[in-house]
Amino acid sequence: MFKSIDELRAVCADLPEGDAASVTAVAAREAQLTKPPGSLGRLEQLTAWLARWQRRNPPRLQQVDILVFAGNHGVTARGVSAYPAAVTAQMVANFAAGGAAINQLARNAGATLRVMPLALEQPTADFTVAPAMRESEFLAAVTTGYQAVVPTADLICLGEMGIGNTTAAAALAAALFGGGAKRWAGRGTGVDEDGLARKRAVIDDALARHKDILADPLRVAAALGGRELAAILGAALAARRQNIPVVLDGFVATAAAAPLKKLRPDGLDHTVAGHLSAEAGHRALVDALGLVPLLQLDMRLGEASGAAIAISLLRAALACHTGMATFGEAGVSNKS
Amino acid sequence: MFKSIDELRAVCADLPEGDAASVTAVAAREAQLTKPPGSLGRLEQLTAWLARWQRRNPPRLQQVDILVFAGNHGVTARGVSAYPAAVTAQMVANFAAGGAAINQLARNAGATLRVMPLALEQPTADFTVAPAMRESEFLAAVTTGYQAVVPTADLICLGEMGIGNTTAAAALAAALFGGGAKRWAGRGTGVDEDGLARKRAVIDDALARHKDILADPLRVAAALGGRELAAILGAALAARRQNIPVVLDGFVATAAAAPLKKLRPDGLDHTVAGHLSAEAGHRALVDALGLVPLLQLDMRLGEASGAAIAISLLRAALACHTGMATFGEAGVSNKS
Repeated sequence: MFKSIDELRAVCADLPEGDAASVTAVAAREAQLTKPPGSLGRLEQLTAWLARWQRRNPPRLQQVDILVFAGNHGVTARGVSAYPAAVTAQMVANFAAGGAAINQLARNAGATLRVMPLALEQPTADFTVAPAMRESEFLAAVTTGYQAVVPTADLICLGEMGIGNTTAAAALAAALFGGGAKRWAGRGTGVDEDGLARKRAVIDDALARHKDILADPLRVAAALGGRELAAILGAALAARRQNIPVVLDGFVATAAAAPLKKLRPDGLDHTVAGHLSAEAGHRALVDALGLVPLLQLDMRLGEASGAAIAISLLRAALACHTGMATFGEAGVSNKS
Repeated sequence: MFKSIDELRAVCADLPEGDAASVTAVAAREAQLTKPPGSLGRLEQLTAWLARWQRRNPPRLQQVDILVFAGNHGVTARGVSAYPAAVTAQMVANFAAGGAAINQLARNAGATLRVMPLALEQPTADFTVAPAMRESEFLAAVTTGYQAVVPTADLICLGEMGIGNTTAAAALAAALFGGGAKRWAGRGTGVDEDGLARKRAVIDDALARHKDILADPLRVAAALGGRELAAILGAALAARRQNIPVVLDGFVATAAAAPLKKLRPDGLDHTVAGHLSAEAGHRALVDALGLVPLLQLDMRLGEASGAAIAISLLRAALACHTGMATFGEAGVSNKS
């Protein structure tokens, strides 16, 4: 679908605004409900956010899709992960069989899980020696993600699986926001001290090698990211253009979507951070993006697991907004 | 049931420990599941906590009861609330009709809501001039709460409704943990600056009047609390003695249960704070009690609303623990 990075860049700059009228309508009803004004706190903001980006009053959460993209990374050859690269495909099989955390969390949240492996047999290049992806490979992955978003969805959660991809995400974050590997590299699935030192060195090597393109967010995503990260970028973009709010999962998913914010200041306004991951760089990343995570449970699994748990907060918000009685209906005295 | 405060005090000191064997069994399975060790963070701790206090491996969440106790407060005559006292009974009617936030949140969480008004036609005494409750009134309310806990419950959430009860809760917290009204009084349902000043003065007056009993947590609960707070104390006590874990709601519910911690250092170990309320004193209170809230959504509604939302986190934790495949079952390579 996307034929060049320049075409993709143009689409990223051509985004619909949110719908202020739906927000106004939601606020008007909220003020009538049997509770002190503002006492449902962030829940009230979430309902308004859903209305703004669905462009609908009231918003709805009938179809919630969890999209998990999987990819493999040439940089795993550098000893940056605690697990062998074969685990990516093994976990995709585990998703298919229903045995992973996200299978349980999706069912628990009343959401549909779709897992999309991206050319697992072709890892990206080791980005310390070459761009992770050629332009055509990157655009194919973005397109896969873009086309994975179906217009009937009321909400999508974006997550990933890919041994080595916290290294890619940290490199991407460092390229976009500065600070080098030290600021962004964490232990991922649980690498030891030596592994963390290797990971930092690999990231700083990559930043040096690709220094000529660091000012271009999409070329950065191609050179330092991964197929599953590119697909998340594409899905987040498609969601915005189809009026579907997005829940981002943790460090990798957030880094993957970050170029949208660099290309346009409101480019991630239709997204919310589902949780604050325990992965070292996530706090700095959400701060850089102006996102306030909904949950903080010290999770660091990926798979959209944190985003999936956040669905229940959105359902709670919407249930209150649509189901509560007004002061008038209930015969409750309003503020004196 | 409880015939004297001394008898109640003895029961509060005679509590079962948690079950270490169930925790060990949960941890053994957790280590086999297809995820990096510890990567589900707090979810893993929650499953272990459920197992410890249910004394069961695996734990279960089939019957979740939300208990909301309601009471009226003589201190409302002093102008400490933004709403008239009649709202307590009006909201109880709203609960019965299904129109309140907690009705929607209970349904959303797959929980059963039970609302228990406590002598709403008899407000407690204005505690600036007398103890809020006589010993017999206090014990009757504690007993109501104690008997509201049914042994078939797998989890209970405790919450409240009572115009004026953040004043009572702040007075109770100040008596138990020191610091005076300034440390504990907040805006409740949204009192203005003058109202907040009155509220602080009322609390400090009450602390001065009842200074002789401030070292006795149960006499403090009778003199400065309220019927719904006493019932929460009784319900939290009954839950511990019947192996039922408890989710506490916000500032008022937490203050109500706090005497259990003063009477025995592990007296609240079977409880978790469902959320951090936006009510001013809640942060200091959970810190004083060593509780780490599960959610922080700037809510300040009461009604067990924050506790009800936290149920979904417990369901997520348990779903992962019981439903995930092990490394062996899924053919996934473990850490290298």
